[in-house]
Amino acid sequence: MLVPVSRTLLKVLLQNHKVVCQISRGMRLVQFQTPHLKGPHLGLEEKDGGGVIDLSAFDPSLPKTMREFLEQGESALSVAKRALESKQPVLKRSEVTFLAPITQPDKVVCVGMNYVDHCKEQNVPVPTEPIIFSKFGSSIVGPYDDIVLPPKSKEVDWEVELAFVIGKKGKHIKATDAMAHVAGFTVAHDVSARDWQMKRNGKQWLLGKTFDTFCPLGPALVTKDCVADPHNLKICCRVNGEVVQNSSTNQMVFKTEELIEWVSQFVTLYPGDVFLTGTPPGVGVFRKPPVFLKETSLPCYFHLLALNSPLGPGRTSLICLLHDCCSSM
Amino acid sequence: MLVPVSRTLLKVLLQNHKVVCQISRGMRLVQFQTPHLKGPHLGLEEKDGGGVIDLSAFDPSLPKTMREFLEQGESALSVAKRALESKQPVLKRSEVTFLAPITQPDKVVCVGMNYVDHCKEQNVPVPTEPIIFSKFGSSIVGPYDDIVLPPKSKEVDWEVELAFVIGKKGKHIKATDAMAHVAGFTVAHDVSARDWQMKRNGKQWLLGKTFDTFCPLGPALVTKDCVADPHNLKICCRVNGEVVQNSSTNQMVFKTEELIEWVSQFVTLYPGDVFLTGTPPGVGVFRKPPVFLKETSLPCYFHLLALNSPLGPGRTSLICLLHDCCSSM
Repeated sequence: MLVPVSRTLLKVLLQNHKVVCQISRGMRLVQFQTPHLKGPHLGLEEKDGGGVIDLSAFDPSLPKTMREFLEQGESALSVAKRALESKQPVLKRSEVTFLAPITQPDKVVCVGMNYVDHCKEQNVPVPTEPIIFSKFGSSIVGPYDDIVLPPKSKEVDWEVELAFVIGKKGKHIKATDAMAHVAGFTVAHDVSARDWQMKRNGKQWLLGKTFDTFCPLGPALVTKDCVADPHNLKICCRVNGEVVQNSSTNQMVFKTEELIEWVSQFVTLYPGDVFLTGTPPGVGVFRKPPVFLKETSLPCYFHLLALNSPLGPGRTSLICLLHDCCSSM
Repeated sequence: MLVPVSRTLLKVLLQNHKVVCQISRGMRLVQFQTPHLKGPHLGLEEKDGGGVIDLSAFDPSLPKTMREFLEQGESALSVAKRALESKQPVLKRSEVTFLAPITQPDKVVCVGMNYVDHCKEQNVPVPTEPIIFSKFGSSIVGPYDDIVLPPKSKEVDWEVELAFVIGKKGKHIKATDAMAHVAGFTVAHDVSARDWQMKRNGKQWLLGKTFDTFCPLGPALVTKDCVADPHNLKICCRVNGEVVQNSSTNQMVFKTEELIEWVSQFVTLYPGDVFLTGTPPGVGVFRKPPVFLKETSLPCYFHLLALNSPLGPGRTSLICLLHDCCSSM
């Protein structure tokens, strides 16, 4: 049956269709390498825990690093979308090594005391403005890489965090425009040497936060169109199978949009900049007695980070699994 | 007269000759652009305040950014040395815009309270270990660029500093090996918003130190072989012609070698990493009453940084000239 449809109605229907497609075709962008593909290569996880599509094989003109890919903006994203839609060969998960989804960013912006329940745990007031600190890019490692226990610290602690990655340059960004500057979300581990963070270095947190390997990220940078509500995600961290952090991102004091507005008053944000948005309660240092990660003789399989995103509100969760051992340097 | 010379002696003589050449042919590496050469281009200042040799014109295979150039190590440096020795066309200084000699480093490592006389000025004890903080790479601007006065701060202050740049990757570097990891020296300006550094952001210094334009660098990265003693340099800063900081790098608490040993216990250092080694006394915030940079209607020509290096001990100086005005955002 043919039904007459006005041009305006058709346009609306097509736009809605496009929106639905974008939502349902969110991507899980990764950086990976294989024994044959050295160095960072851009890929797409088919699905959470699935195989990997090599984006360079689909279009050799695409950049090889996520930072350059994000700098190309929508045009690069649309190539990746075409790769996902077309039937591409898929590398088995066992064939690839996942790197962090973003490496060598201009900034790793971190937010302190940004969960209401984490502030309660410390018995400190909820901050009235964000507390911003940083890690060096050199602390970033892949999601399954070792966290190396530095001989200089005896108090290495866990902190699972929701992270977001900037996709579009901006300064003085309003909260209402902020999501246009976000490429997507991932999981971060803000590993923290409490002795160096809290007692040394003139109480500047940087050194305690930025030891090599203290910023595991990934595996996937999940594009924002498949995270229904980033501020309503279950967030938990397990150490040796025991759940040690278990909260929701609805406990965040300053949300993604507010953090972008705040930080972009100080600095220009660039594609690839990573924000670690703070950790929920359950860290080791505030336990009685305090508990820290230990060096053990167990095999070095330390953490696994996953952003499960089954495209429905309330079904998304961040999980950080962590064995309580680190390799020593 | 022909004199018989043994092979071994000849080798020693040649090696010595090479060392002397290296010392006397230190280089002043810059990044620049012109109306016809957009984006960062690598160059060599003929001499302090002289014209610029375009290294890409000499060897188009050389990388265009200093970070990539330093990553190539000795092989790239030797190409630059050949360019300096051969008669190359020289761009007039008036034709080029100097960028910072290093941009987009992995790290801008800063050292707090690292001058004995600056500690006295604050009436605080000399630190027993370095105090390390950071700026984001996005704060770096060229040596003659505007410092932009942010509306969020009313207390923007000056801090002239000796900076060094890493030329070789390393971790756990001993002080005795540290100079092998240094590419060279430059002048930095650790512009600081005292209100944000000292009173806000949970007393984490980062935000007050990392506003856009708060890290002017350059113009030249002076290779280490033409800085006879980096720890015996006159260091001064002038604001509107008045000398406001005037000291010597011999007042540094932790020298280049110690800073490299210290920081490399925490993090891997990469080529291009910049260290700002602390400021001498004379900053505005400790004056009575405090003095800060003002917004004025003067033309925006704010600072000029020079590392004069006439190849002799005691003749080298760092100068930062600064007009007490900033453009507003």
